[in-house]
Amino acid sequence: MLSRRAFAAGVTLATGAALTRASDAQTRALGEPQRFPDPETRSPLSRQLGGRPGFVTLNGGSLPWRMKGDVKEFHLVAEPVKRELAPGSTAHLWGYNGSSPGPTIEAFEGDKVRIFVTNQLPEHTTIHWHGILLPSGMDGVGGLTQPQIQPGETYAYEYVLKKSGTFMYHPHADEMVQMGMGMMGMFIVHPKDPAFRPVDRDFGFVMANYEVHPGTWVPDTSIMLEFNTWAWNSRVFPGIDPLVVRKGDRVRIRIGNLTMTNHPIHLHGYDFRITGTDGGWVAPSAQWPEVSADIPVGAMRCIEFTADEEGDWAFHCHKSHHTMGPMGHGIANMIGVRQSAATKRITRLLPNYMYMPMGEQGMAEMQDMAAHGMAPPENTLPMMTGEGPFGPIEMGGMFTVVKVRRDVAPGDYTDPGWFEHPQGTVAYKVDGNGRRA
Amino acid sequence: MLSRRAFAAGVTLATGAALTRASDAQTRALGEPQRFPDPETRSPLSRQLGGRPGFVTLNGGSLPWRMKGDVKEFHLVAEPVKRELAPGSTAHLWGYNGSSPGPTIEAFEGDKVRIFVTNQLPEHTTIHWHGILLPSGMDGVGGLTQPQIQPGETYAYEYVLKKSGTFMYHPHADEMVQMGMGMMGMFIVHPKDPAFRPVDRDFGFVMANYEVHPGTWVPDTSIMLEFNTWAWNSRVFPGIDPLVVRKGDRVRIRIGNLTMTNHPIHLHGYDFRITGTDGGWVAPSAQWPEVSADIPVGAMRCIEFTADEEGDWAFHCHKSHHTMGPMGHGIANMIGVRQSAATKRITRLLPNYMYMPMGEQGMAEMQDMAAHGMAPPENTLPMMTGEGPFGPIEMGGMFTVVKVRRDVAPGDYTDPGWFEHPQGTVAYKVDGNGRRA
Amino acid sequence: MLSRRAFAAGVTLATGAALTRASDAQTRALGEPQRFPDPETRSPLSRQLGGRPGFVTLNGGSLPWRMKGDVKEFHLVAEPVKRELAPGSTAHLWGYNGSSPGPTIEAFEGDKVRIFVTNQLPEHTTIHWHGILLPSGMDGVGGLTQPQIQPGETYAYEYVLKKSGTFMYHPHADEMVQMGMGMMGMFIVHPKDPAFRPVDRDFGFVMANYEVHPGTWVPDTSIMLEFNTWAWNSRVFPGIDPLVVRKGDRVRIRIGNLTMTNHPIHLHGYDFRITGTDGGWVAPSAQWPEVSADIPVGAMRCIEFTADEEGDWAFHCHKSHHTMGPMGHGIANMIGVRQSAATKRITRLLPNYMYMPMGEQGMAEMQDMAAHGMAPPENTLPMMTGEGPFGPIEMGGMFTVVKVRRDVAPGDYTDPGWFEHPQGTVAYKVDGNGRRA
Repeated sequence: MLSRRAFAAGVTLATGAALTRASDAQTRALGEPQRFPDPETRSPLSRQLGGRPGFVTLNGGSLPWRMKGDVKEFHLVAEPVKRELAPGSTAHLWGYNGSSPGPTIEAFEGDKVRIFVTNQLPEHTTIHWHGILLPSGMDGVGGLTQPQIQPGETYAYEYVLKKSGTFMYHPHADEMVQMGMGMMGMFIVHPKDPAFRPVDRDFGFVMANYEVHPGTWVPDTSIMLEFNTWAWNSRVFPGIDPLVVRKGDRVRIRIGNLTMTNHPIHLHGYDFRITGTDGGWVAPSAQWPEVSADIPVGAMRCIEFTADEEGDWAFHCHKSHHTMGPMGHGIANMIGVRQSAATKRITRLLPNYMYMPMGEQGMAEMQDMAAHGMAPPENTLPMMTGEGPFGPIEMGGMFTVVKVRRDVAPGDYTDPGWFEHPQGTVAYKVDGNGRRA
Repeated sequence: MLSRRAFAAGVTLATGAALTRASDAQTRALGEPQRFPDPETRSPLSRQLGGRPGFVTLNGGSLPWRMKGDVKEFHLVAEPVKRELAPGSTAHLWGYNGSSPGPTIEAFEGDKVRIFVTNQLPEHTTIHWHGILLPSGMDGVGGLTQPQIQPGETYAYEYVLKKSGTFMYHPHADEMVQMGMGMMGMFIVHPKDPAFRPVDRDFGFVMANYEVHPGTWVPDTSIMLEFNTWAWNSRVFPGIDPLVVRKGDRVRIRIGNLTMTNHPIHLHGYDFRITGTDGGWVAPSAQWPEVSADIPVGAMRCIEFTADEEGDWAFHCHKSHHTMGPMGHGIANMIGVRQSAATKRITRLLPNYMYMPMGEQGMAEMQDMAAHGMAPPENTLPMMTGEGPFGPIEMGGMFTVVKVRRDVAPGDYTDPGWFEHPQGTVAYKVDGNGRRA
Repeated sequence: MLSRRAFAAGVTLATGAALTRASDAQTRALGEPQRFPDPETRSPLSRQLGGRPGFVTLNGGSLPWRMKGDVKEFHLVAEPVKRELAPGSTAHLWGYNGSSPGPTIEAFEGDKVRIFVTNQLPEHTTIHWHGILLPSGMDGVGGLTQPQIQPGETYAYEYVLKKSGTFMYHPHADEMVQMGMGMMGMFIVHPKDPAFRPVDRDFGFVMANYEVHPGTWVPDTSIMLEFNTWAWNSRVFPGIDPLVVRKGDRVRIRIGNLTMTNHPIHLHGYDFRITGTDGGWVAPSAQWPEVSADIPVGAMRCIEFTADEEGDWAFHCHKSHHTMGPMGHGIANMIGVRQSAATKRITRLLPNYMYMPMGEQGMAEMQDMAAHGMAPPENTLPMMTGEGPFGPIEMGGMFTVVKVRRDVAPGDYTDPGWFEHPQGTVAYKVDGNGRRA
């Protein structure tokens, strides 16, 4: 997943496809809805953005627009989608334009936008433009500010973008189900002035939680807290692409949260500042130094740092159950218990689950589950996974790597592979005399 | 609930009653305890506050005081209460002076206060004055700083209010039960200087969580996280009054949290600043722009904004399960499942619950539950409810509406009804050619 | 517990033992690993810190170092430990150097450190130096930046401490299990300049959550949220030592969180500022006044205040279930239910649990459980406990007392006993005429 080849191929393919479809779209009345069925990270929309760096949606992309007079027109289609969470596990979600999350909308402060929303779900929906200042009737709250958009219908929202910032879009109709099924997307409004807080790399994602019971495909949206799938842009480790950064770059990462709990997003190797929220830009006088940004639900945080230290830097939610796969929870604790005698009995009690004597000495031994021929339920990821340059990484869920390298070209996001540590800069084994073993 | 008539009637009635009882109270030794059995939003205590705008407790009111020399005397009675959560559901809680939460205490920086606390609960209690700087012996921690107040006893607390701010009161005795049963209230200390951060409208509420199992009346206080009732001032949508605001007003909303989790309170249509906590006022240099204020447990946040955009603006917790009624959780997920064959079998397995084939195409269809003659258990609200000007609002729990209008008089909080959107400012249905349908 | 004698004895004993062992350690190749098997609060390492006040680890201590050329060498041993949570309950955890959490590492900005880590666990491990800026290969992420440290092996980490601050160490290997079993510690880097934000008292602890099922000894690390043991430095009330402070002292308390949820740490009697995080020091312009510091997971917060008001000030997590012992959760709610008839039947249904008719009038009556001869399961603390000067304190878990006194000597942390309130400064019982009863 973090391999060089897969990532580069994805970028090339997606860029080509996007351009073709976008020009087709010029000929259709509502704009042909650009679809993003594959979970690759697309190249930024630099061409439409007048050559500015643009925004990189992790394992997604931005939605091209077309001009209609002085209005930028976008076309979103709410619909059921299939999303590969990571190789080996696919969820049947609801999203926009073939994907969950939907494509990112990018525009500029002062733009007038018109967004067509076509409902191809089995039930009514709306879209709320979270954080954007607009007339009450464009706010997208079903029943309160507009009628619901019925299946088959298309609605138009139009408003002027009064300020730059980091926003989201999501339904304000049957919210527990529709957000719980993956309906969400980012809405980036770039400042009119290119000199306002410029960065070299601008990444982002929105967080979701799903309970996809082992062996099933559809999230159980009645679950309130005990989710087994903690996702960034509806992907989980090792399915989340790395954030590739050139040494010395100014980096912004924009993170939204539409789960049911705070996520403290921890970056190794750096301290950073939170420079913006979905309410606007944070004044320098108000910024705190942090290594974990606690992202509240229904909020966005932009973190910024200068990438002055090369390496492979872990980047993850710091809640330990959120960097695990679905098979880790609710398993009986066996630390210190001799298990051989118990196995047969337990297998009889739980005939629908595989059972192996595990965790007698911690859970790291479970890495070898596959090697022992013990398969998890169909479509379900193991508790810990991911192969690194020094062996298993033992993670899952909300985890990826920020890869800082000196030999990356501006605008290149190709995975550079694993970091080659300079001699003498890696933790080392010592003998009883404290010398390198 | 958000209807014009019910709200206006409530205000009139309550104001009259308050004045009558307050003058009776002058004649009693401890002050006749003013009681607030009805869930109306009372008019501010402007007369006792020397004509200042005063504080508006959502679905509650402030406790009148009497002067005894240079001391302001208040009288709180801890007692069991019945609280209507919303029409159709009443909980048997513990509170103060006939209500949960108890009435708001309002005073001024520099005031000397004496607060009588009479215990009419079946067990001992105390009151802790959360955030207020006072002598250790007035801090109200049962066992540590004072003896418990036994049933039938009255205690007095007295101290000088050293600083202005937004505080709370609640027991510090058998806390899990007593706070879990609804014992809490707000304590507003106004600044001595009326020019210090003045506002035109000053609202507030404190958040509680209850597990009132379907078909029952008393919260289960042993529940730690999986609550089904997420309340503002022990009310849930559609039982929470709207916040009525005059266009152009400077608005403050003070929010306290005595639940078991953070609540990100999201306001549509505006960005705002957090200007104060229960620790004091936040310096402008330290304020962040926000659209969702993440209120920690055991904390208060004041948000402020200038109401320059008319409309009906949703105002709610952004955790999707917190804007739902009790019937939404733990229901089996049926999205994509053809249910007719399964209904009979499930009904046999769950004889104590009504069962209807629901959620096959999402949960919005459940709005029609009543129309199909399927009643929820007695005293239990449905998952989603509330009727707006464009149809069902599909919410519950921690949700209400901020109503900003140009034609509201200063000091008038009467519900103005639904917003009439100017022509061309509502999302609109389009045909296949992108034209208004 | 909070008694004067036990605490003073602990300090004396521990200080003596530490010095003896530290000088022994000079003769061993890796440094003899100093062990901290007893849960006493140790005196600060003032001698090694050149006479500066030093850091006080609640119910723990700091790890002495030895110089090897210009390098400070420390030796951590990862190993199973037995930790007394509070008198009457001991957990079998994993930790470092005989304790959970491991000993605090203290050093100075600019120091070069070498830390030997010996693995005596049954499975592999690593250490991540949370918040510290260092080369990627010293970051301690098993599989990603280094090979796992296998059982029996010793690894060395070495790096220069680029900045002062409040950091942590913990495994980045099989995290759910290893952090869930108690593997964590604090890492304090003092500023080079002694005039930078000096304080008179510098306390700290790290928070953990465990599920030690009633009657058992080993935490169940598969639990995600519903923990029954909420601990500060793997201690629970009344096992947590008080924070002893001299009136007028500038006090810093550093708090880390490695649980699965935010903890709002509430201090009575004072408002304070958050002056630092694990990302660095917070500028005064950005600081907020607070009475509850909401500590995110995977983060540290330093709070600071001037102790100008004498007293016994409660200091605790404000989530009510987090200041309770293990027996409080999941017990059926009996408020208002006459129980005598039900007892026999319930006892038959739950033969493995003691059952008593409880909570008919709230839970405070359960204080008397022991008096009625009802014993909780072996090794399990009751729901509420702790005896204060005015009777039972009714707390558990994350609770202790900050004791501010005028007659405490600099550098003395001996428990001064309970506060003697000056006359007329304690809440008082009144009669029907409002006079002191």
